[in-house]
Amino acid sequence: MVTELHATELNSSDLKNSPDLKTYCRQLAEQARAAAHHLLRVSGQAKDDWLRRSAAELRRQCPAILAANQQDLERAAGLGLSDASIDRLRLDAGRVEAIASGLEQLAYLPHPVGEVVEGYTRPNGLRICKVRVPLGVVFFIYESRPNVTADAAAIAIKSGNAVILRGGTEAAHSSRALVRLLQQTATQCGIPPQAIQWVDTPDREAVGHLLAMADLIDVVIPRGGESLIRRVVAEARMPVIKHFSGNCHVYVDRTADLEMAVRVTVNAKCQRMGVCNACESLLVHRQVAAAFLPKLAEALQPHQVVLRGDELTRRYVPAAEPATEEDYRTEYLGPLLSVKVVETLDEAIEHINRYGSHHTDAILTQDLESARRFVTEVDSAAVMVNASTRFHDGGEFGLGAEIGISTDKFHARGPCGLRELTSYKWVVYGDGHVR
Amino acid sequence: MVTELHATELNSSDLKNSPDLKTYCRQLAEQARAAAHHLLRVSGQAKDDWLRRSAAELRRQCPAILAANQQDLERAAGLGLSDASIDRLRLDAGRVEAIASGLEQLAYLPHPVGEVVEGYTRPNGLRICKVRVPLGVVFFIYESRPNVTADAAAIAIKSGNAVILRGGTEAAHSSRALVRLLQQTATQCGIPPQAIQWVDTPDREAVGHLLAMADLIDVVIPRGGESLIRRVVAEARMPVIKHFSGNCHVYVDRTADLEMAVRVTVNAKCQRMGVCNACESLLVHRQVAAAFLPKLAEALQPHQVVLRGDELTRRYVPAAEPATEEDYRTEYLGPLLSVKVVETLDEAIEHINRYGSHHTDAILTQDLESARRFVTEVDSAAVMVNASTRFHDGGEFGLGAEIGISTDKFHARGPCGLRELTSYKWVVYGDGHVR
Repeated sequence: MVTELHATELNSSDLKNSPDLKTYCRQLAEQARAAAHHLLRVSGQAKDDWLRRSAAELRRQCPAILAANQQDLERAAGLGLSDASIDRLRLDAGRVEAIASGLEQLAYLPHPVGEVVEGYTRPNGLRICKVRVPLGVVFFIYESRPNVTADAAAIAIKSGNAVILRGGTEAAHSSRALVRLLQQTATQCGIPPQAIQWVDTPDREAVGHLLAMADLIDVVIPRGGESLIRRVVAEARMPVIKHFSGNCHVYVDRTADLEMAVRVTVNAKCQRMGVCNACESLLVHRQVAAAFLPKLAEALQPHQVVLRGDELTRRYVPAAEPATEEDYRTEYLGPLLSVKVVETLDEAIEHINRYGSHHTDAILTQDLESARRFVTEVDSAAVMVNASTRFHDGGEFGLGAEIGISTDKFHARGPCGLRELTSYKWVVYGDGHVR
Repeated sequence: MVTELHATELNSSDLKNSPDLKTYCRQLAEQARAAAHHLLRVSGQAKDDWLRRSAAELRRQCPAILAANQQDLERAAGLGLSDASIDRLRLDAGRVEAIASGLEQLAYLPHPVGEVVEGYTRPNGLRICKVRVPLGVVFFIYESRPNVTADAAAIAIKSGNAVILRGGTEAAHSSRALVRLLQQTATQCGIPPQAIQWVDTPDREAVGHLLAMADLIDVVIPRGGESLIRRVVAEARMPVIKHFSGNCHVYVDRTADLEMAVRVTVNAKCQRMGVCNACESLLVHRQVAAAFLPKLAEALQPHQVVLRGDELTRRYVPAAEPATEEDYRTEYLGPLLSVKVVETLDEAIEHINRYGSHHTDAILTQDLESARRFVTEVDSAAVMVNASTRFHDGGEFGLGAEIGISTDKFHARGPCGLRELTSYKWVVYGDGHVR
């Protein structure tokens, strides 16, 4: 089985041996650009066939994938990776099955390309359509988890884009094996295998070279730590879809149902602490602080969450530590929660817009006007009324697969799925119309 | 009348005297940011009142505006501006009336902010809406025409954005007078005048400072020559909506109605030569070249258009000059047309995608499959079938006002009107939903 994976060599394997890294990167991007053009003629049915066939092959070739993963794991010990990182890196039969069924689910989603977003006939008889089209070539940079390799390739191809994948080098064997499989099945389904490019060198300069190729790459999507994203933003000569992390708030309004507020706050903070849509900061209206905060502190105790609050918070929860200005800016991604008692809804909104990261913020309220003002004035990708911040997710929103959550306001905001990897063009039909 | 314009001083007039240009720029951007937040609470009705009142004031204060314009014109002679530039700079009663009626027309267009782009209820009862919101603070950089000052401010405010205007210094007196008027009427209509900021210094470094303020400015739109746009792209730390110029093609297919093809080509080339959607390059299928090219050359003669063609073109039009590779890349913006005879539709598509600027390209054909392939495979903001390239325009598309035509694929493509200055947010309503 292992040898089977090696039967077809990646076209890029030759390139990477070329003397010049920049030439290698350029050829890789040129192949992707040509494949993107070719993809315009590939039917949606062929793309869905490819997703299903890839799922079947993943199941069939599971032992070979796991053998490649084993190589990464053996190397990981030597690299001194943390247990959490090694766990993210690890594949097993269950995780390979999850990747396969993810590809199958994607095959059931509608195809974004070709959708007529709007269309009308002008008074002079010109027929005008705004039609959804692929972005072109997507450069995706991500960290260790090998399953992201398959997800990203699948979303890119289904939305009609060629993709250049730059995964974490610690998962290189696993990702390379997955890319080979996806390229093989692509060929079998009439999809150019060059539409899935793997940057097959550990040299970090390759990323810099590719970020300069705005003539060949339409968009770059970095997914990982803040330093990675900042580097990409600084260097990229093409647009970047940014997925910065979330300093998410829950605000408990004067009129909140306090039992509901406890339940939602505990869920937003504790259901999964290390993710971008977990709650990091709590704001409580002064009129309900005395009733709410002790109840919340009690409910958080089993989760061992430490509160860091202002003076009033510490009056109602004596065990709370004092909060600094820095706490209100911090995404803890762990068992800490900053807390502030506010005098008004305005103060809450102002605090969130100042200290938050424009990701996800929730209000608990029974008051219609408070809800309306909160959703209008809080400048975040998602605003929740009486619901946990944890629902900000492509799957929970019913969008299917996603490659990240954009904290930008430009192009795409919130979950990025198939549609967010598209643009549109204007198609105009006349009968010899002149001005 | 003239004194009336000076009654209210621009708040920025004090700032620009501050010792530090960067501080001046920062304060200006901070004022815009605060005004953008305030705008979220301003009704659409107030915005439309402001547009109508501004139109009325423009008519009333026309002599003062013309007096300010006179100062620019007097200085222009000394700056050695071309006659064409001076003409673009000049205002008269008719042009002021055109600005006023443009503002009134904008008041009739629908408001983009608050539009529910989509909305649905999830199986778990969560109600999810994707709601259109302003981008925030728009930094608009443009060249001499003073009417653009009023258009840009009007489009920005109607779409809920604060705007920072950096107009050409040769029109500074005219633009400053217009901005003052618009700020005065804003105050009268409950719109913060700080939502319209004028960069009131000739110092070019101000642009560099503002391009670095990604924390305060959401998007920059440069409109002018290619060197301006390239500078902005290189320096901006926030997204740029690019309006590069157009190397637009007309392709005459094997099955084209040749009379129609002559009419459309002449219109696309000659109706207005100096604009971005004028035709610069002509491709002709070999099977119709002998019949078409001499007819076209004859029809172009009254317009004194010089053809530059390949060998076959020059066989059919002996007066044509030889074309170089460079000609096929050039946007002439004048009475020149590059011509190439192609063997196939594929060759035409390949040529357009290689040499074109992804702006506007047209096919003349009677064949459904040729039309389908052309609109699918030509990678341009607008593709026309049997219609002149000159129709690629916000007004002609029925979008109302526009601030430019985007040659990007990211965020907005083609005409940028009110909607293209918006983003969206996800608004989620639950009843205490937790995961």
